[in-house]
Amino acid sequence: MTLMIRKDVIDADNAARIADLQTDYDHLGAQLARRGIDIAAIKAQVTAYGVAVPSWGVGTGGTRFARFPGTGEPRNIYDKIEDCAVIQQLTRATPTVSLHIPWDKVDDLRGLREKGNALGLGFDAMNSNTFSDAADQTHSYKFGSLSHADPATRQQAVDHNLECIEIGKVLGSNALTVWVGDGSNFPGQVNFTKSFERYLDAMKAVYKGLPDDWKIFSEHKMFEPAFYSTVVQDWGTNYLIAQELGPKAHCLVDLGHHAPNVNIEMIVARLIQFKKLGGFHFNDSKYGDDDLDTGSIDPYRLFLVFNELVDAETRKAEGFSPMHMLDQSHNVTDPIESLMNSATEVSRAYAQALLVDRKALAGYQDGNDALMATETLKSAFRTHVEPILAMARYEAGGAIAPVAAYRASGYRAKVSGERPATKGGSGGIV
Amino acid sequence: MTLMIRKDVIDADNAARIADLQTDYDHLGAQLARRGIDIAAIKAQVTAYGVAVPSWGVGTGGTRFARFPGTGEPRNIYDKIEDCAVIQQLTRATPTVSLHIPWDKVDDLRGLREKGNALGLGFDAMNSNTFSDAADQTHSYKFGSLSHADPATRQQAVDHNLECIEIGKVLGSNALTVWVGDGSNFPGQVNFTKSFERYLDAMKAVYKGLPDDWKIFSEHKMFEPAFYSTVVQDWGTNYLIAQELGPKAHCLVDLGHHAPNVNIEMIVARLIQFKKLGGFHFNDSKYGDDDLDTGSIDPYRLFLVFNELVDAETRKAEGFSPMHMLDQSHNVTDPIESLMNSATEVSRAYAQALLVDRKALAGYQDGNDALMATETLKSAFRTHVEPILAMARYEAGGAIAPVAAYRASGYRAKVSGERPATKGGSGGIV
Amino acid sequence: MTLMIRKDVIDADNAARIADLQTDYDHLGAQLARRGIDIAAIKAQVTAYGVAVPSWGVGTGGTRFARFPGTGEPRNIYDKIEDCAVIQQLTRATPTVSLHIPWDKVDDLRGLREKGNALGLGFDAMNSNTFSDAADQTHSYKFGSLSHADPATRQQAVDHNLECIEIGKVLGSNALTVWVGDGSNFPGQVNFTKSFERYLDAMKAVYKGLPDDWKIFSEHKMFEPAFYSTVVQDWGTNYLIAQELGPKAHCLVDLGHHAPNVNIEMIVARLIQFKKLGGFHFNDSKYGDDDLDTGSIDPYRLFLVFNELVDAETRKAEGFSPMHMLDQSHNVTDPIESLMNSATEVSRAYAQALLVDRKALAGYQDGNDALMATETLKSAFRTHVEPILAMARYEAGGAIAPVAAYRASGYRAKVSGERPATKGGSGGIV
Amino acid sequence: MTLMIRKDVIDADNAARIADLQTDYDHLGAQLARRGIDIAAIKAQVTAYGVAVPSWGVGTGGTRFARFPGTGEPRNIYDKIEDCAVIQQLTRATPTVSLHIPWDKVDDLRGLREKGNALGLGFDAMNSNTFSDAADQTHSYKFGSLSHADPATRQQAVDHNLECIEIGKVLGSNALTVWVGDGSNFPGQVNFTKSFERYLDAMKAVYKGLPDDWKIFSEHKMFEPAFYSTVVQDWGTNYLIAQELGPKAHCLVDLGHHAPNVNIEMIVARLIQFKKLGGFHFNDSKYGDDDLDTGSIDPYRLFLVFNELVDAETRKAEGFSPMHMLDQSHNVTDPIESLMNSATEVSRAYAQALLVDRKALAGYQDGNDALMATETLKSAFRTHVEPILAMARYEAGGAIAPVAAYRASGYRAKVSGERPATKGGSGGIV
Repeated sequence: MTLMIRKDVIDADNAARIADLQTDYDHLGAQLARRGIDIAAIKAQVTAYGVAVPSWGVGTGGTRFARFPGTGEPRNIYDKIEDCAVIQQLTRATPTVSLHIPWDKVDDLRGLREKGNALGLGFDAMNSNTFSDAADQTHSYKFGSLSHADPATRQQAVDHNLECIEIGKVLGSNALTVWVGDGSNFPGQVNFTKSFERYLDAMKAVYKGLPDDWKIFSEHKMFEPAFYSTVVQDWGTNYLIAQELGPKAHCLVDLGHHAPNVNIEMIVARLIQFKKLGGFHFNDSKYGDDDLDTGSIDPYRLFLVFNELVDAETRKAEGFSPMHMLDQSHNVTDPIESLMNSATEVSRAYAQALLVDRKALAGYQDGNDALMATETLKSAFRTHVEPILAMARYEAGGAIAPVAAYRASGYRAKVSGERPATKGGSGGIV
Repeated sequence: MTLMIRKDVIDADNAARIADLQTDYDHLGAQLARRGIDIAAIKAQVTAYGVAVPSWGVGTGGTRFARFPGTGEPRNIYDKIEDCAVIQQLTRATPTVSLHIPWDKVDDLRGLREKGNALGLGFDAMNSNTFSDAADQTHSYKFGSLSHADPATRQQAVDHNLECIEIGKVLGSNALTVWVGDGSNFPGQVNFTKSFERYLDAMKAVYKGLPDDWKIFSEHKMFEPAFYSTVVQDWGTNYLIAQELGPKAHCLVDLGHHAPNVNIEMIVARLIQFKKLGGFHFNDSKYGDDDLDTGSIDPYRLFLVFNELVDAETRKAEGFSPMHMLDQSHNVTDPIESLMNSATEVSRAYAQALLVDRKALAGYQDGNDALMATETLKSAFRTHVEPILAMARYEAGGAIAPVAAYRASGYRAKVSGERPATKGGSGGIV
Repeated sequence: MTLMIRKDVIDADNAARIADLQTDYDHLGAQLARRGIDIAAIKAQVTAYGVAVPSWGVGTGGTRFARFPGTGEPRNIYDKIEDCAVIQQLTRATPTVSLHIPWDKVDDLRGLREKGNALGLGFDAMNSNTFSDAADQTHSYKFGSLSHADPATRQQAVDHNLECIEIGKVLGSNALTVWVGDGSNFPGQVNFTKSFERYLDAMKAVYKGLPDDWKIFSEHKMFEPAFYSTVVQDWGTNYLIAQELGPKAHCLVDLGHHAPNVNIEMIVARLIQFKKLGGFHFNDSKYGDDDLDTGSIDPYRLFLVFNELVDAETRKAEGFSPMHMLDQSHNVTDPIESLMNSATEVSRAYAQALLVDRKALAGYQDGNDALMATETLKSAFRTHVEPILAMARYEAGGAIAPVAAYRASGYRAKVSGERPATKGGSGGIV
Repeated sequence: MTLMIRKDVIDADNAARIADLQTDYDHLGAQLARRGIDIAAIKAQVTAYGVAVPSWGVGTGGTRFARFPGTGEPRNIYDKIEDCAVIQQLTRATPTVSLHIPWDKVDDLRGLREKGNALGLGFDAMNSNTFSDAADQTHSYKFGSLSHADPATRQQAVDHNLECIEIGKVLGSNALTVWVGDGSNFPGQVNFTKSFERYLDAMKAVYKGLPDDWKIFSEHKMFEPAFYSTVVQDWGTNYLIAQELGPKAHCLVDLGHHAPNVNIEMIVARLIQFKKLGGFHFNDSKYGDDDLDTGSIDPYRLFLVFNELVDAETRKAEGFSPMHMLDQSHNVTDPIESLMNSATEVSRAYAQALLVDRKALAGYQDGNDALMATETLKSAFRTHVEPILAMARYEAGGAIAPVAAYRASGYRAKVSGERPATKGGSGGIV
């Protein structure tokens, strides 16, 4: 396997930390034992857990006002998967990459697959793009794509999704994520009903082209880029889509795509209950689709989402096998560092949720002991599980402290020397 | 028919206004004729339109902090329907009353029905109450009703709903509205999935008791009285309920029960498209479930909702026949005045929506002419339709200016002399 | 004066409409006379009213996901002011243009001023840009500008603002608008207090360079481009800035820059009361800083803002002379059409607010007659004032129906032939 | 000192826990030592910290829909302070009680003070009530109090506040908290400017009666009980009040009184910077003024608020000495348990904030290392500080596990036998 970071760099950083880690791990083990929990079992589950990294996430993001690129920005999908490999090498928690077409389209797909595999990476869900116009495109998506009033534009969007499936087949992916920006900026601009009918028709055409062992995910979002209405605006509409399409269709939940104050963990529970939870785009947000680092704003909410996932896992909920992916915009940090930290945050929430005493919780719930029920969750959340995460990384060959090891490696400086500077531009406002 | 307001009072007030009204009506008729619209046809549709008044709406409302009663507060359902009759007499737009059990429960149901009919009032949907404890109740709803962890409490709530149906049968109602406050105040307090399963089971038991020609409406609400999670929290869950229950089950939309910024007219469109729109609780809100007078905060939003309704009516959407009711809390106004004005606002939005040039609109939509599409709606909204509403009232025997006629009648002073003062209390915070 | 649209085109369109307009105007005049209002006086006030157009508004906007340009996009400030002149010629309501530096920077400022004047346009407030990096800039604004931790970067931002003042002096402007995107994406990224201290220091340096007869406007915004904290996040902070700087400093209110549900008209009233209302960036929004066409989402809110302005005007509030500007992003319409419609919407809200019976309103307010107080506002809002607006335009040489006349003129096709197509790009997300 | 809970009950519960606590405390001490932190110093600061309990908080709360009382509800202020004494005895973190007038008004104020002192309790800020009508009141607050249009009503409200000061003087309080519900439910109902002028005049009259060593706190709230506008709607208006009144006037921040998505910790920072932070009403919320248990919904937000407080404390910010109080509505829990847990949560956030490495943080901030800056906060937040809190309680004579000890004591059962059941009522909606 090709290693992007030299093993000795990681080893050196780990060597300075392992003694303290072992002490902390042992003490945590003793604490958990008092609560009847086997720390090794938790560590094993954490080790087995992984979250996908999106190929576009390793580039610096921006807003409609500006983009301020960092140095060593990846130039293409080959650079991108090298950056992704760094994340996986150090965290051991991101074994797959999720591609975006046409941004990541290359002629030699088999070569790309091989390069990925050589770096220890598999290929997660494919992402189509009908929210911007590619250079060579016949019909514009200015007024929509899968729901466009014009049949030829819809067909073009369908064809693009079918092409993504074909590309994914070669790469070893087995899922297609469809997010569209279709909607309107003015009351009356589109007819809600006709527009959704057209969307459903187009999606049915895509669904027809889906291999039997694939899944298709639709993703809801309240607003942006459309600012009055969005075709797939919430989980209610998303559920209707999955229901209309059939058993291979599921709903994708992006944590930043909801109305203010919405109880997202409850939406997750509903989708699980009705067998339509397809997966997640993890990130965090304070205002809208802010695409901030996962767990950076409200870590307890992230835990509450994982509490639902572990609950479903524990009771072996029928049809439950969601996909996990990070989806963030890194505007002011080194994207590799943000993605490593976010992968850790997701693992942390998972580990904390595994610690919930579900039997006690059920008892408190049945007895309407609200205070002890919520304390049962809080007590799991408060547990400082970092030693478990760090030990899992360490034992799998990763870094005890990924960001520190990464900085020690000099990777960013190295690629900055190889990859030319990109320009920022002033975003979408001209 | 018993008249609550003397005919000569109304006649006198109308007499002072009819000449100007006729002038304005004629000029509006000419303006509409230029746009190819027959004012008489619009007036006929407005005349045929009606919205139900809730029995509890004629009392002064309050908040958890305080209630400041007015004078002449109705003491019981007999007083209440007299107040409702005033509203209908003056506006000719509120032909039915919606009762709340147990608040409006009486021994002589046939007598109540006859009194209603004598006042020119029919009986709209029945409303059950499992969000507060009645004096003689065995099990408390403190921790839920239809979703309560305890089967006996759930059964009690089911029985109460079945009783509401029985009462409604006698009164001539043909629908049951079920709103529950069930939810939780703490993460972990309830298990979302089990709780919803219990709710569905209980509702199925109620559904079984529903006569063939009845409908049952479930009503979603984001929060309050539960402040962390609510069992029927949004239209997505509401749709699932209606789907699980069967063809007699539909979703009720209260305009104030959504998350901030949510596009409500789009939810209305979705429910129509999937044949599950049951009806409305009209009111207005700026922050939460404020229960303000309909159209008082955002009249254009009300119009956009009616635009969807008229669109569905026009294309004869399958299964489309929603119920319309006002549901407001009148804390600082005379409830009769607020309800009269709100009935007028609903009629106004309906009239404006009838004026939309739907053929032109469809053309602009198909051509992606967003500006002209939205102008088509705006132009209908801006039309000053008051002459149509007033003429419809006048010709049906109502008041050209309902509030003025009401004030001239001295009704409030009269009932204030008959009905003793009530106390305010300091609400739910002790 | 140079006319961008041939006079005969406008005349021809007007000729087909003037008879109906005169009839409607006369009837409205009679209606208003009944309410004791002189329509000619209202028309005179509407005629005297104007709103500035931002130079960047005539280009097609976009989002971080994509920009879909239209045809005939203006290439530079000369093209832009020609487009602005079209708007002014047809609406007679946009006599000034507001420039953005460095986007609109040219060598020959006097020539630019003369061209503007020849087109009948003056120059409104200057706008500085420290939210994106110009090509030749020494220090990046990635981590802030006026509040940046590095003094050299702050000085660069101060110098840029001072340069904007110098440019404005030549053009005949007398105000500087400062909007910065400074803030943070992570808790802890900046120290709120130090950061605001640095901002205040830098603004004081700009203030020192402000001519005596100029004003400086600071503009608050809740979020975007920063997604955790923003230095000038709300009117409270904005007020503190204006207070710290001195009498020439005032607060600018953009209607889309507030938290969900916020009562904006009340903020306007507070700033008037404390003599710090500097002006407006008009637009509309449903979710965030959507920059939609003014009055397109919630026209009643726009009216309520103007109700405060007319109230202050009527009582001659001390220090009250706010600047009015449109600030919108036109993503799916012809920007010229959107700006014309928006100018009309602003005039409409002004005209409606002039119709409020303020004496009656004060009486209802003092008597706690909430229903009649709100009806007094509603009744003004409902008045169909279009005939007043159209007659004001017509008599001033503009178009009765600006969009129709514009379409008839073929202006967009003409400039599309002259100005080359621009590319969209895929926005800030790489 | 009178003990409400028998010492041997606490001792017995503590005895079973002290060994594990000592182990955990020692291990945490070793971990913190590695980070250069002395655990004993942190413990000393936690021990010195206290938060006030509101007298009304020990009763079960409710909503406008219903109140479901628990058993053993306190009947009067004497019962209430006994419940408060339980909280202080077990947590050692709530040394003072905050009274509400007229609810807690008694004839023998000196006797009340002595009883409080005998229970080990002092008296925190006094709270006036002009949001509901007392039984014997001359003028109603239905349409406002300090901002009412009628001078006699305003005077009555002023007099009530002055009376609260007099009562407080006897009890040893030195602060008055003024929260009013004044506002409006309809656009136009009140004139924003006149209404605020009246409020300011009335508050100035109260301020005049304030002893030199007292403080007066005004409290802002976005909405409820008024649903269109509120006189003191946000911190901007609150700051203006404090500025107009003078140096003894400060702003109170209730965590649940803001618009959705608002960055509260930033408001706290601004008020500190401008020397106007008066104190807190701690609680948590998901939707509006939910008054949930502190830290139950978003514990990281609570930490971020305390991060600002410790930052100000550390740099000895001028004029910084905020008051801390819990203000919650306990609808589904035993109020004593909720208040004990909430006091612990506040102490926890304080302890975590004390752990922030402020020197490192400042370095990351100056160097724009956003990722490490936020990690510095996160790392403090993640530290499991419970052993510090528990040891501080234990050493001060409190309970290691307050809820467990409380349940073991049988206190609720005992008072349920002594205090008669109260009725729930169906809240403000009648």
